[in-house]
Amino acid sequence: MKTKVFKTLVRVAWVETDAAHVVHFSNYFRYFERVEEEFYRHLGFNFSSAASRGLWFPRVETLCQYRRPARFNDLLEVELIVEEVREKSVKYGFRIFSEGSATLLAEGYMILVAASVQTGKATGIPKDFVEKLKPYSKQFL
Amino acid sequence: MKTKVFKTLVRVAWVETDAAHVVHFSNYFRYFERVEEEFYRHLGFNFSSAASRGLWFPRVETLCQYRRPARFNDLLEVELIVEEVREKSVKYGFRIFSEGSATLLAEGYMILVAASVQTGKATGIPKDFVEKLKPYSKQFL
Amino acid sequence: MKTKVFKTLVRVAWVETDAAHVVHFSNYFRYFERVEEEFYRHLGFNFSSAASRGLWFPRVETLCQYRRPARFNDLLEVELIVEEVREKSVKYGFRIFSEGSATLLAEGYMILVAASVQTGKATGIPKDFVEKLKPYSKQFL
Amino acid sequence: MKTKVFKTLVRVAWVETDAAHVVHFSNYFRYFERVEEEFYRHLGFNFSSAASRGLWFPRVETLCQYRRPARFNDLLEVELIVEEVREKSVKYGFRIFSEGSATLLAEGYMILVAASVQTGKATGIPKDFVEKLKPYSKQFL
Repeated sequence: MKTKVFKTLVRVAWVETDAAHVVHFSNYFRYFERVEEEFYRHLGFNFSSAASRGLWFPRVETLCQYRRPARFNDLLEVELIVEEVREKSVKYGFRIFSEGSATLLAEGYMILVAASVQTGKATGIPKDFVEKLKPYSKQFL
Repeated sequence: MKTKVFKTLVRVAWVETDAAHVVHFSNYFRYFERVEEEFYRHLGFNFSSAASRGLWFPRVETLCQYRRPARFNDLLEVELIVEEVREKSVKYGFRIFSEGSATLLAEGYMILVAASVQTGKATGIPKDFVEKLKPYSKQFL
Repeated sequence: MKTKVFKTLVRVAWVETDAAHVVHFSNYFRYFERVEEEFYRHLGFNFSSAASRGLWFPRVETLCQYRRPARFNDLLEVELIVEEVREKSVKYGFRIFSEGSATLLAEGYMILVAASVQTGKATGIPKDFVEKLKPYSKQFL
Repeated sequence: MKTKVFKTLVRVAWVETDAAHVVHFSNYFRYFERVEEEFYRHLGFNFSSAASRGLWFPRVETLCQYRRPARFNDLLEVELIVEEVREKSVKYGFRIFSEGSATLLAEGYMILVAASVQTGKATGIPKDFVEKLKPYSKQFL
């Protein structure tokens, strides 16, 4: 079975550039989160309902490797795959391309845990969420 | 009695610049808020204790006029005065100078209301807060 | 002749919210700029070609009035009209609605001047740009 | 010889928080850059003079691990060490503590290359810069 990739388009805004005329490196993490948010909307996964069950999803680690700079007005294709689903954590992989080209601009990952709002402790990822992630998952542990 | 001015220094960060090699115009509002936050710390005014009394302070209007651009590494002097205190609202005035010079880079204002977290409705500004604002106030209505 | 309104949709990202669970007030200015950027793309107006003619468009004044808070995941309709075109400056007006409703969340304006990159001085707005703005203009002076 | 650590203090601003009442994960990278900028000022290293020699320092990789959340008004101690200096690249290590405590909030690293503005290609790090980094370096290759 082939792993599904989820994609969204992001247009580079002026405010995201810096005085080197390129997108500031910290903003790639915001692009990662942008596709993650679109992904949840696509899955019909509801943060508010998770919060009402006392859950939130803090990040524990994130990395980005920069290949080529993105610039103002560029249209970016941001890809997400589910690298790994564990009992209490999820790892997403990201790649950013110049739209309509095979030129990789940046890639990286992000690891999230499910945590109790009450205690702050890591907890099991909700089963319904895990089910929704499956088609996009490379590896299931 | 002379009106007191509250000042803080802000160093321009790289991420605050844009591809025009100047500070992005939206960041001046963040500098305004930075001096406001320093001001509350200086007054010993405690947001958490306000929140525990069910209050918050949404902005209702803000304006900035830009005179000369600020650039990376510039040290800015950000000034706050209390323009006006009303029953339910406060108006702060701001001016941003190049540190150690009389060159005005930007100026503006911000109007806040006290509001109930519960109902969302505007409410009276706490008396203890009004007392603390007095020495910095141009006008008392 | 009726004034045309230019619109774009903006989805509120998590990073744009603050600890009051609402969009940070400074981000509305970034939404203003987002629709402005879309507007230029729609008009076929090219910043790079303006820059190559030695022009840039610094902001000289901007204001926002906040009516109701926007929150994470909200879909916003951001409207731009050309309030006024002068020899060396343009004033845009903005309104932000909750998508598909008549609920006004915020409104404001922004004044830009055309300036020479070389001298920093205000200069005439390019004729071809003025022509493109006309259908969206309330007032021509 | 003991490796020197360079430190700076950062006060968490309201705008840096998100609707989870904690600092947004992307802002830790901006804190990393903040201490890096202070470090250069401390070293007397001048970006403008580097730029005038046709050099810039794009990031090629950065990572952050999040241990405990930082919140509004927290005073953070941000530490930088020089992990590694290579011919064309530098790796900085970062740790963020709650000020006056031994509680680690986050840690990470950033790898930069020296590059020619003209060609975009990696190039040797200037000798005078390498000399300045030495006292803060764990490893010299």
